[in-house]
Amino acid sequence: MEPVNIGLLGLGTVGGGTVTVLTRNAAEIARRAGRDIRISHAAARAYDPERIEGLDGIGRISDDAFAVVDDPEVDIIIELIGGYSPARELVLRAIANGKHVVTANKALIALHGNEIFAAAQERGVMVAFEAAVAGGIPIIKALREGLAANHIEWIAGIINGTGNFILTEMRDKGRDFAEVLAEAQALGYAEADPTFDVEGIDAAHKLTILGSLAFGIPLQFDKTFTEGISRIEAQDVAYAAELGYRIKHLGIARRAADGIELRVHPTLIPHRRLIANVDGVMNAVLVKGDAVGPTLYYGAGAGALPTASAVVADVVDVVRALTTDPNNRVPHLAFQPTELEDTPVLPMEEVETAYYLRLTALDRPGVMAGIAGILGEEGISIEAIKQKEPVAGETHVPLIMLTHQVREAGMNRALERISALDVVQGEIVRIRMEALAG
Amino acid sequence: MEPVNIGLLGLGTVGGGTVTVLTRNAAEIARRAGRDIRISHAAARAYDPERIEGLDGIGRISDDAFAVVDDPEVDIIIELIGGYSPARELVLRAIANGKHVVTANKALIALHGNEIFAAAQERGVMVAFEAAVAGGIPIIKALREGLAANHIEWIAGIINGTGNFILTEMRDKGRDFAEVLAEAQALGYAEADPTFDVEGIDAAHKLTILGSLAFGIPLQFDKTFTEGISRIEAQDVAYAAELGYRIKHLGIARRAADGIELRVHPTLIPHRRLIANVDGVMNAVLVKGDAVGPTLYYGAGAGALPTASAVVADVVDVVRALTTDPNNRVPHLAFQPTELEDTPVLPMEEVETAYYLRLTALDRPGVMAGIAGILGEEGISIEAIKQKEPVAGETHVPLIMLTHQVREAGMNRALERISALDVVQGEIVRIRMEALAG
Repeated sequence: MEPVNIGLLGLGTVGGGTVTVLTRNAAEIARRAGRDIRISHAAARAYDPERIEGLDGIGRISDDAFAVVDDPEVDIIIELIGGYSPARELVLRAIANGKHVVTANKALIALHGNEIFAAAQERGVMVAFEAAVAGGIPIIKALREGLAANHIEWIAGIINGTGNFILTEMRDKGRDFAEVLAEAQALGYAEADPTFDVEGIDAAHKLTILGSLAFGIPLQFDKTFTEGISRIEAQDVAYAAELGYRIKHLGIARRAADGIELRVHPTLIPHRRLIANVDGVMNAVLVKGDAVGPTLYYGAGAGALPTASAVVADVVDVVRALTTDPNNRVPHLAFQPTELEDTPVLPMEEVETAYYLRLTALDRPGVMAGIAGILGEEGISIEAIKQKEPVAGETHVPLIMLTHQVREAGMNRALERISALDVVQGEIVRIRMEALAG
Repeated sequence: MEPVNIGLLGLGTVGGGTVTVLTRNAAEIARRAGRDIRISHAAARAYDPERIEGLDGIGRISDDAFAVVDDPEVDIIIELIGGYSPARELVLRAIANGKHVVTANKALIALHGNEIFAAAQERGVMVAFEAAVAGGIPIIKALREGLAANHIEWIAGIINGTGNFILTEMRDKGRDFAEVLAEAQALGYAEADPTFDVEGIDAAHKLTILGSLAFGIPLQFDKTFTEGISRIEAQDVAYAAELGYRIKHLGIARRAADGIELRVHPTLIPHRRLIANVDGVMNAVLVKGDAVGPTLYYGAGAGALPTASAVVADVVDVVRALTTDPNNRVPHLAFQPTELEDTPVLPMEEVETAYYLRLTALDRPGVMAGIAGILGEEGISIEAIKQKEPVAGETHVPLIMLTHQVREAGMNRALERISALDVVQGEIVRIRMEALAG
């Protein structure tokens, strides 16, 4: 069969990795796909030719991305520029030109996916985005195809490697967030501006996508609750460990009775769960289906070659479906576009979880009873209490509590009342807790 | 679109589960697949109508499997009878009749897959077998599609739940193999005749399939080395733990310099590896690709609904590819049928691994030196030695050694010589060891 011509936008980390994988594994990929896949036209503003293996195999390289998208010889566009603009315009123009698109751009899909998929559907082309979530792990394929028989109940994922590296180092070495962040930046695991990673925005982009694939709802990034890890303290990591838990930054999507939960936040999980043992920069996604039960997918969530692995797998998929009747292809958001639901995404106040609480209270009889009384009045039952020994000379002691499940709104009210007590000092730390039981 | 008509062969555990999943999740599956999937004709010798949810939705049920396979209204045959015959004849006749086939039959695929896939290729139909390996885990999809960009280096899988349950119980409770096997039989996790599970034959069927998918070689069950867990003793599980290892029954496929390794055997692995923490009846497959690095897939490896999850996902896949040009579909063994390699499968004597050795030797100066001397002469270096304290009144002590990597042939020679020493008593226990480093 004729070779497939790729137009590649971007020759940065992932773009370079994609050139490398397509070059290095060209023969093996052709043995699988049944035809050669070659990059006939690439565009990049600036790139390091020394760092990219196989660059000389590319037909033509310029700095004009729109020329690639308009190139009549190109069958499939790989968008690896990132960001919203001009990525959005390039992808929409590629679609308008009848080209299929493969992208690793999670921000673009999370925010503009509905528009992009509608345009692709209209034009009968595919937009593939496996690399947008959890790097090299084929989690989108697992959700859209591998688990197609299931009613998905919930998903919980470690989907940001930088955050997981920081939390792992904090636990292993008992160090503070700021110190580990500085180390992660020095190692190149965290950006100079780490906001997207440590404040959970990157994870929220990915969770938005996973939630749509799992539940058949449109992409709704603005409804995704997002809380980062920058306020996690070394002492909370240590107290959690004493209680048999680990703190992980999870993206959680759950089908509740009244709607869909989409939330990214630090979470205490039992240390014996497999996902609690996913450490360092690695990612993992735990999916609970009604038929299959719990399944977990683990691997590298970022990096040049792992991300390129997902990009190239998408290209092979697109090549295989070229001759498929467009209505028979795997739908972009897993469900047929006419079959998406308008089930509401729940505001965080309506989400039920258990909690880890840490507060500093006067070490005096009756104080605990007062706090427990308020929790009780708000319908919150306590599962465990741990009172630390007072340090000599200190009048106040740390008090750690684990609660049973309660609506966030009830917890907010209780914490407001407890904070107002004279015997309670400073801020109350609250970290959500999930059992993730199969 | 028109509904798709399924012919179902078998209404046992997995057959019943398949009816249940197709019934219970009918609406959601149709929202994904874009059309209804209904069982129009089923055949079973005997079944329990009380136990199967949705049985009354089946168009027609008889005891004549060949009538189902010959039914002109049936588009896709699901074969869930198991065993070699008449499963083989039924599948080949379905293919001859131009029907697509979905099967969970690992024994059939491992032994007759080459013949079956050739017939399917010739006739332009699909044979899907996700449920044949690791139950509900979409591992075949991951290997054939999700990791299509990779040169696969090795695979290591816990692919028999019964064996993993037994080893987990032995470790957690310090109990002996026979005792735990009896418990597993009482719980229904092990068959009355447990040979297929505990002697590794079931795992070898699955590994044969995984090896072909990973390396693009024909199915060669007869070349797969198979060693069971029935000779693992509680003391070896305990010694392994003391040394920081767990014993898992692994199926390992590896591309070595001179050929392909396909081997099923008990294996010591470092306890910090994620796969070392996969316990009970759960399965997991660790795949190392050159681009993606290590990835792991975890879930239920057996059971009615988890296996049905894979069966029904295959049905949806087949439905989606109905309009695809047959040459563009995912090849049965991941690589185009004309592109399979004849790389030899290595005999076990030529495989290199590290070893755990336990022997009982006279507690006398010079004995250890003699044993170490023989190992040294055979080019085997010792990584760790642990000599247990002698029990009062005993002249002999257990001696545990971990070795570096060596060819099995060299280890065989060394053990033969050591066994012949007067100072060594009884049999030498040898368990292979793998680092499974990413």
